[in-house]
Amino acid sequence: MKQKLLIGVDIGGTTIKMAFINMNGQIREQWYIPTDTSEKGKQISNDIANSIRDHSLQLNIPYDTFAGIGMGAPGFINMKTGFIYNAVNLGWENYPLKDDLELKSGLPVYIDNDANIAALGEMWKGSGNRSDDLICVTLGTGVGGGIISNGMILHGANGMAGEIGHMTAVPQGGAPCNCGKTGCVETIASATGIVRIATEGLSKYPESLLNQTYDINRSLTSKDVFECASKEDQWAVDVVQFVSLHLGLTIANLANALNPSKIVIGGGVSKAGERLLEPLQEVFNQFALPRVRDKAELVIASLGNDAGIIGAAWLVKENIS
Amino acid sequence: MKQKLLIGVDIGGTTIKMAFINMNGQIREQWYIPTDTSEKGKQISNDIANSIRDHSLQLNIPYDTFAGIGMGAPGFINMKTGFIYNAVNLGWENYPLKDDLELKSGLPVYIDNDANIAALGEMWKGSGNRSDDLICVTLGTGVGGGIISNGMILHGANGMAGEIGHMTAVPQGGAPCNCGKTGCVETIASATGIVRIATEGLSKYPESLLNQTYDINRSLTSKDVFECASKEDQWAVDVVQFVSLHLGLTIANLANALNPSKIVIGGGVSKAGERLLEPLQEVFNQFALPRVRDKAELVIASLGNDAGIIGAAWLVKENIS
Repeated sequence: MKQKLLIGVDIGGTTIKMAFINMNGQIREQWYIPTDTSEKGKQISNDIANSIRDHSLQLNIPYDTFAGIGMGAPGFINMKTGFIYNAVNLGWENYPLKDDLELKSGLPVYIDNDANIAALGEMWKGSGNRSDDLICVTLGTGVGGGIISNGMILHGANGMAGEIGHMTAVPQGGAPCNCGKTGCVETIASATGIVRIATEGLSKYPESLLNQTYDINRSLTSKDVFECASKEDQWAVDVVQFVSLHLGLTIANLANALNPSKIVIGGGVSKAGERLLEPLQEVFNQFALPRVRDKAELVIASLGNDAGIIGAAWLVKENIS
Repeated sequence: MKQKLLIGVDIGGTTIKMAFINMNGQIREQWYIPTDTSEKGKQISNDIANSIRDHSLQLNIPYDTFAGIGMGAPGFINMKTGFIYNAVNLGWENYPLKDDLELKSGLPVYIDNDANIAALGEMWKGSGNRSDDLICVTLGTGVGGGIISNGMILHGANGMAGEIGHMTAVPQGGAPCNCGKTGCVETIASATGIVRIATEGLSKYPESLLNQTYDINRSLTSKDVFECASKEDQWAVDVVQFVSLHLGLTIANLANALNPSKIVIGGGVSKAGERLLEPLQEVFNQFALPRVRDKAELVIASLGNDAGIIGAAWLVKENIS
């Protein structure tokens, strides 16, 4: 029998990442199309279906080679029915995405949220190394999370499982979070949070390298913070310690409850690599139970932006096998 | 076909609770035998097998009516193989419990730890009401936990999942915990923790009802604390608030990650009922995401000491069906 191909789709607010991926998780072809959010995003599923047909023709791949489409979308989703309750960035509201795209593509469609497919991608082909018990934390503009336990992604009672970013790190007097609460770990360990904390303290450290960087660029990035910390700038070191304390404690608490074998740290902030991992590991070791700590490996994600399309393809593979 | 019977066994350090339970989860017969911990607990499996035979004869139940034995044990267990790494209270060390009991009873045996079978029991026949996504927290001498997600009990990478009692509530300067760490939620929300906190503050509140109770009995119980709080004794109210804050925050954080539909509070401390549930719900509402909060029902366990044998019987039912 001819080897089937999986289609991975990762929808973002400005671009849609797409790929043809083989059953071993190798990317055969990948490309982007723009996200057309006009008219409440009604063109998006057409654009995806047409783009798949175009690329299959260009590459001379018979359409019946495709086993199905796996898809990651932002927002509130019913993963079983592929129904989107609400995806603000895309304009979708009460939209039967799965049904619509199946109609337009003629292929079976499987949907999960973007944080979960990133976790599945890292599990399948990335740092997660096929772990059946994995926590993935994505440190970007916000903090996303995906939890795999007993080999399955957890969805919870209404699809909210994995909202690690909204675990409370500072119960009293924490910074306001986009979710409406205060003191969420997202307000501290996201790129946005790190920059906020670093910037707020600059006036107290006028001589710091971080303040000099700010004076040159009139702004800071989380990368600046880690770079200044590696040069032993005290204020930058303090910020990294503070971030590591709260993120490490949150992860250790979750690990005590879930006992993962892999904890994968991804997203833009994770590019700091060992500069983040080392202080994080120290805090984790302090707060995790010995048997939990000994089994859990803390690692940096390895797939970068490809995690989503690979995890989306995995959804298809799991559902057809 | 004749209705099969399930055998539920819940092993404690002093007694073993046993029951014949039908496929609907109704207890047909239950009894206790003492736990013989002499000679590293080598008689325990014999005692269980013999007791099953005795009771089946007495009750005139043909032995082939039994579908199998489900069993909850304390300690570190490999749930798949039923191998006990270590159960200090019973004397077991590197002991193939499942294999041994299957040999002696001639019945299939399924094993999980005691906190997990309590969660399964509450899920099947108690306050959990068949929820596929449930967190069970048992507030007794310690704080135990069991997590059901996607309809399955979570074990994690080496059987440690559900150790909710060792999530850290007080990161710095917390009380020492039996696990070797400090500030675990067990040091605050267990019966032991509540009594410790209440007793430590008595000298500051010489006029309090709680201090008067202490003077009469020369000791306190967690029940005293809740009773004095319900009479609006300020120090007792403060203790209940403090306990609720830390337990409620821990549960809300876990709920943000797992999105349960039921959170079941069991164990001796839960007998306080609404006196505990009301302040706990208030804290939970503050720290849980709105969509998580709206879906999660916080309830008191309803099966008491029967949760274990019923959950153990459920293990058999799930494995044979």
